[in-house]
Amino acid sequence: MNVENKPKIVNVGILGFGTVGQGTWKHLEENSQFWEKILGVQVKPKRASVRSIQKERKIKIAENALTTDSESIVNDPDIDLICELIGGIEEAKELTLRAFENGKSVVTANKALICEHGEELFEAAEKAGVHYGFEASVAGGIPIIKVLRESMVANEFPLIYGILNGTSNYILTRMESEGVSFEDVLKDARELGYVEADEALDLDGVDAAHKAVILAYLAHGIWVNLDDITVEGIRRISIEDLQAARKLGCKIKLIGVIRRNFKNDHISVGVYPALVPIAEIIARTDGVYNGISLTGSVVGTVVLTGRGAGQDPTAGSVISDVVDVVKAQNGISAGIKLRHVSPEECKPAKPVEIGGSFYIRLTVDDKPGQLAKVADCLAEHQVSLATVSQSPQSGSPTASIILTTHETNEHSINLAIQSLEQLHGVNEKPVLFRVFDPNLTPKE
Amino acid sequence: MNVENKPKIVNVGILGFGTVGQGTWKHLEENSQFWEKILGVQVKPKRASVRSIQKERKIKIAENALTTDSESIVNDPDIDLICELIGGIEEAKELTLRAFENGKSVVTANKALICEHGEELFEAAEKAGVHYGFEASVAGGIPIIKVLRESMVANEFPLIYGILNGTSNYILTRMESEGVSFEDVLKDARELGYVEADEALDLDGVDAAHKAVILAYLAHGIWVNLDDITVEGIRRISIEDLQAARKLGCKIKLIGVIRRNFKNDHISVGVYPALVPIAEIIARTDGVYNGISLTGSVVGTVVLTGRGAGQDPTAGSVISDVVDVVKAQNGISAGIKLRHVSPEECKPAKPVEIGGSFYIRLTVDDKPGQLAKVADCLAEHQVSLATVSQSPQSGSPTASIILTTHETNEHSINLAIQSLEQLHGVNEKPVLFRVFDPNLTPKE
Repeated sequence: MNVENKPKIVNVGILGFGTVGQGTWKHLEENSQFWEKILGVQVKPKRASVRSIQKERKIKIAENALTTDSESIVNDPDIDLICELIGGIEEAKELTLRAFENGKSVVTANKALICEHGEELFEAAEKAGVHYGFEASVAGGIPIIKVLRESMVANEFPLIYGILNGTSNYILTRMESEGVSFEDVLKDARELGYVEADEALDLDGVDAAHKAVILAYLAHGIWVNLDDITVEGIRRISIEDLQAARKLGCKIKLIGVIRRNFKNDHISVGVYPALVPIAEIIARTDGVYNGISLTGSVVGTVVLTGRGAGQDPTAGSVISDVVDVVKAQNGISAGIKLRHVSPEECKPAKPVEIGGSFYIRLTVDDKPGQLAKVADCLAEHQVSLATVSQSPQSGSPTASIILTTHETNEHSINLAIQSLEQLHGVNEKPVLFRVFDPNLTPKE
Repeated sequence: MNVENKPKIVNVGILGFGTVGQGTWKHLEENSQFWEKILGVQVKPKRASVRSIQKERKIKIAENALTTDSESIVNDPDIDLICELIGGIEEAKELTLRAFENGKSVVTANKALICEHGEELFEAAEKAGVHYGFEASVAGGIPIIKVLRESMVANEFPLIYGILNGTSNYILTRMESEGVSFEDVLKDARELGYVEADEALDLDGVDAAHKAVILAYLAHGIWVNLDDITVEGIRRISIEDLQAARKLGCKIKLIGVIRRNFKNDHISVGVYPALVPIAEIIARTDGVYNGISLTGSVVGTVVLTGRGAGQDPTAGSVISDVVDVVKAQNGISAGIKLRHVSPEECKPAKPVEIGGSFYIRLTVDDKPGQLAKVADCLAEHQVSLATVSQSPQSGSPTASIILTTHETNEHSINLAIQSLEQLHGVNEKPVLFRVFDPNLTPKE
C-alpha cells in the first residue's frame, strides 16, 4: 500500500476515563474495522486522561496512553478529536475552549456544562470552524438531539415532554409497583450506584432541568436560565400520592415539559412531578428508562424511549457523534455508506433455526376425544402444549380449541399444522399465529 | 447585495403531485426563510409532474410549474434535486436512474421500489456521486432510517421488530377495542381512504414486508428476497382470537420481525400477525400509529412510535432528507446550525400564562368543616375542584384530603397554596403536583 492510498487516521483523545470514557474507548476500538469500511477513514482512541494512572480499570490500555494531564491531550497535535467526559463545569469548559482554539472538534456528554455555558461554547465552536457534538448529554442512548435537530427539521414544537432522569424514574417505579417508601428505594439506588455523588442532581430535578434547558434551546433557539424555571424533585412524593394518582388513571412521573404558545411565542420550561395519564407512553416508561414525546407541527407526535444512562448507551451516543464529526471533516456524504456484506457473512436462517412458540385456533367437531387427538398429533411433531382452552361455538355442532405451544421452531410447527389439517374432525384450515417473545435467544 | 453574496438556490423538482407531493411542496415553501437561515442556501420547490394539469388541488401552484412530463423535470438543468413521489416500480425506477445520470440526488418515499431494486439503485447513486434519500419509505414520520444508520452506528442488531403498516393496525385496533368484525372495520377504513388501491399491500402484509426488507438491509447489509420470507396478513384474525390473546396477556399485532443470530450470522425476516405481550410498547401502539423496537448491541432497546403515513408526516421525512442532501452537497457541517433567535422572537411565559390543572394533598385536623374551609380558600383564588377525597390517617388525629382542580394557572395555584398553608387546621406544607395534559391548548 503506498502512502497516498493509506487510509487517513483520526486519533481520538478522551478526557476522563470513568464509566463512559472507558465504554467509548472500548467500542471505538472494537469497531475499528467497521469504521474503516463505512467511513474510509481509521478512527482510533489514542490517549485518555485519568486522575490516577495506577487505578484498577476494567478496560486495559497501554500505560503510556494514559496521562493525568488533560491539557496535554487537548494540545497534542496528533489528536484530531476530543471526547470530553470528565464532567463538572470549569475545567471541562476551559479544556473544551482550548480544544476549539486548537482546531479540534469536541464530543461531550456534559449536560451541566452545556446548560450553563452552551451559548458561549456553540459560538466558540462556530468561530473556530469545528464541531461540538452533544448527543450523549440528553437521555443517554436515545438519539433525541439528532431527531430533534435533523429528522424533525421541518417542524415547530408546541410540546416536548418526557422523563429525562433515569434514577428518579427508577425510584418512583419501585415505590409504585412495590409500595416501598422513598427512603428505602433510595438506599437501594445508592447501593446500585444509580445516584450521583451530588444527590440533588437526581432527586431534586436538577439533572433533568439541565436536559430540558438544552432541549428548549434546540427546539426554540433561546437559552432559558436554570434559575428562572420551575425545578422540583421527587422527595415529597409518597406512596399515598402514587396510589391516589392510579385511581385517577395516572402515574406520577418526574417530567421535563417544554411548551410553546405560537399565538404569542411565549415558552414555558419546567421540571416537576406530574400525574401523567396512563394512556401516554411516558406514563408507562418505567425503571431506569427515559422517554421523550416530541409533538411537531408537521409530523405529529413521535415518542422515543430507551436507556437514559449507563456506560454502553451513553458511549454509543458519544460514538455516533464522533462518526458524524469524522464524516463532516472528511466530506463523507449525508447518511453513511450503507452496510453491505457478502452472502457468506450473513445468511437467511432455515425454518428449523427459527424458534418460537405459537398460537393455534382450531374449529373441530364438538365430540369427546377431539382434544386428545389434537394433542397427540402435535406431540408426534415434538410440539408441546403450554395452554389449552376449548369452548363450544353457539348454534353449531362445532367447538373452538385454542392452544399455545411451548418453544418449538417454524419447521416443526408447519409439519404439525399440516397434520392437524388432515385430522378427522378438524373442520377448517387451522389458524396459526406466532407468540412474539422479545427475549427469545437464538438457537445455534 | 452583490452576486457573490447572493445565497445559492437549490431548486427541487417533485415527481408525482398526490398527497405527499403536495405536502412536500407546501412545507418546503412555507419554511423557505428558515432553510435560508439554517443552511445559508435557498431551497425552493420549482416544478411538479402530474397526471392531469386541470385537476382541482388543495395546493395552488402556478400552472406553468406543473407538467405531465416527468422526464422533463428529471432532465431540467435548473433542477438540482428530485423528490420521487409517484410510486409504482418501472417508471419510478427509470426516472430515478435518469436523475442519477444527470447528477441529481433523489429523495423518495417508494418502499416497493427500494425493496425490489434497492441494490441496483444504491449502486447507481454511489457511482454517480449523488445521494438517494429514503427516510419517508419506512414508517412515514418516524425517523427510523436515520436512527438506525447514524445514531445507532456503533450497534449490531440482534432484534428489530414493530408495526410497519398503519392501515392494518387501525383495523386490528378497532376490532379489538370495539369488537367489530374485520369486514365492517375494513369498510370504514376504505371510506376513510386508509386502504391502498391494491388492498393486498395493507391486508396481506406486503407493504410491511417491503419495509422489513429495507430495515433488514440497513441493519445487516443483505438484501432478502421478498419471495423467500414469511409474509402473512390480517385476514384470518377474528374477534375470538383477539379476545383469547387478551386472556394470555397479549395483543395481536401485525409485526415485521428481523432477528439475527450472531452465533452463526443467520438472519430471519418475516411479517405476520403475532401475540405481543402487553408490556411491550409495540403491543400498545394503536390506531394508525407505527412503532419500531430496535435492540442494539451497545445501546440496548430503543423504541420509536409515531405516525406511519399521511401527508404531513411523510412530507416531513421527505424534507428532512432534502435538507440532508442540501447539507452534503454544500459542505454544511454535521448537524445543522442550531436555531438561534433574538429575545424578541421567543420569550418565557409568565406564571399566569401557564395553564393546567393540579393535584393537592393536605394533612388536616380530622374535624368537621375542614374540607369546606379548604374548598372556600381555593374558590377565593378562582381555583375550582374537579375531584375530592378525604380519608383519616390511621393512628393519628389527622386526615388526608386529596384534591384535583379544574384548569387554572400557575399564578393562581401558587396564591391558593400559600393561603392553604396559612389555613387553621392544615398541618403540613401542602403537597402540590401538576396534572399533565398533553392536549392542553395554550391561553393567549
